[in-house]
Amino acid sequence: MFGAIEAGGTKFVCGIGTGPEDLEIVQIPTTTPGSTVGAVIDFFLKSKAQIKSAGIGSFGPVDLHPDSPAFGYITSTPKPGWRDFNLAGAIAAALNVPVGFETDVGAAALGECRWGAATGLTDFVYLTVGTGIGGSAIVNGSVLHGLVHSEMGHIRIPHDLAADPFPGSCPFHGDCFEGLASGPAIQARWGIPANQLPQHHEAWKLEAHYLALGLASLVCTLSPRRIVIGGGVMQQQHLFIQVRKELPRLLNGYIQARELTDRVDTYIVPPKLGNRSGVLGALVLAEAALSRKH
Amino acid sequence: MFGAIEAGGTKFVCGIGTGPEDLEIVQIPTTTPGSTVGAVIDFFLKSKAQIKSAGIGSFGPVDLHPDSPAFGYITSTPKPGWRDFNLAGAIAAALNVPVGFETDVGAAALGECRWGAATGLTDFVYLTVGTGIGGSAIVNGSVLHGLVHSEMGHIRIPHDLAADPFPGSCPFHGDCFEGLASGPAIQARWGIPANQLPQHHEAWKLEAHYLALGLASLVCTLSPRRIVIGGGVMQQQHLFIQVRKELPRLLNGYIQARELTDRVDTYIVPPKLGNRSGVLGALVLAEAALSRKH
Repeated sequence: MFGAIEAGGTKFVCGIGTGPEDLEIVQIPTTTPGSTVGAVIDFFLKSKAQIKSAGIGSFGPVDLHPDSPAFGYITSTPKPGWRDFNLAGAIAAALNVPVGFETDVGAAALGECRWGAATGLTDFVYLTVGTGIGGSAIVNGSVLHGLVHSEMGHIRIPHDLAADPFPGSCPFHGDCFEGLASGPAIQARWGIPANQLPQHHEAWKLEAHYLALGLASLVCTLSPRRIVIGGGVMQQQHLFIQVRKELPRLLNGYIQARELTDRVDTYIVPPKLGNRSGVLGALVLAEAALSRKH
Repeated sequence: MFGAIEAGGTKFVCGIGTGPEDLEIVQIPTTTPGSTVGAVIDFFLKSKAQIKSAGIGSFGPVDLHPDSPAFGYITSTPKPGWRDFNLAGAIAAALNVPVGFETDVGAAALGECRWGAATGLTDFVYLTVGTGIGGSAIVNGSVLHGLVHSEMGHIRIPHDLAADPFPGSCPFHGDCFEGLASGPAIQARWGIPANQLPQHHEAWKLEAHYLALGLASLVCTLSPRRIVIGGGVMQQQHLFIQVRKELPRLLNGYIQARELTDRVDTYIVPPKLGNRSGVLGALVLAEAALSRKH
């Protein structure tokens, strides 16, 4: 049995199991590190199942470099109490098992890769569009880290102020991808929460356009074999249909691959693991942590 | 000895050697495949040095997937005569040696990685800004390919039409990154070739802004540890100074890494191999092709 932790800004999802069939899950609200992580540790220590290792997919920014003194830390978050908190270290010390550590979106990508919408693919992108926009790229079978990790929500995209005078909601960049296309951006622009906007509201055409602009840049930089898009905003199923039309229109035949033309229905897809992508990906991280130890 | 071929749209640069110290180079104009590739083959066959393998960095788009029937082909180029030409196959058959194959920018990245401005780095971006904009990412030590290969020149960036009414020069996308910031875009916008614009011309401030917008998206998707920028437009050394100021301004402290703040001088750098990045990278490809064979 492995332990899995999806550490989110509003809740921690903890699970014990080996895969989608047997994973048992609890949710713990995110309050202070002491209280939340204390409850997480309690859950694993009191469980009858003995876990051999644990995996964590965490909200960030996080330090992913095994050779860094801050490896396993949540770093510069504005979230009170969590800044510079050694999350992986706290879990490893309390449970006395090897611990794998990744971003929340990196874990979700690994989950979808193993059991979900990207099985068999060594190169794809997992994107989430909800309260923020985040993404992770799997390249040659591994999560792309590089200098820090991807921050796909903060790429800049064209913004026609005449057509859409909304200045954007990102406190750092104003009208970056997240500032224009996240759930809070939709709500601030139209004055109505995204999940209450009717399907034929003009909001969705604009949203599909911004999403396609963001995807176009991901396609031109990361050349993924598929893009899996989850998150609250993407609960609007019709958005997939619109984005699948808008992305090929924007690319305009430049990148010649059938995945981007007549096969776009299987190129831009929702996650198959629903809201369990992250916690299942944390299981994958736990497995990898154990095999590194042996 | 290894053979190296940098296959460009205007010339093929061919070399024989083992590295920067002993590489001997000839240039062959790019005309038709028969004539140009014939001259390339002649050069290697008539050389006294016996090459054990060859590497090719080619203009594209190209097919890089070893398991594809079109592996080693130049694919959908508009260049007369070169569409669907089996470049790697022609070289391999004529020289009877193993052949490595990559994009031109992928080869340049490998050259800079081995002997140039990115030695010791497993994750970086090589970008060229000249008659077009192209780029290649090294991720976890390997060239990123994915579905096709990166087409970094075609990401979309913000374009303030009030400040810059130039509609962009890309025949596919108008005002994409390349459409706004390539050499031909600069010339079309100002009516003067880029290399004749004086250093204090307003063109350069705008150019630095567009370059930084493009780099910001590369940083947010690929999280490179360094960005090496070559190409004709970057011969304007002052551009580096301006881009190193503009990129941190655009990122606005969101990505907390000293490479993007007080170390930006070593983050955005010119190539160290000058115009030999590509042909030297082709040597690296030749080496790899030989070791794969053994």
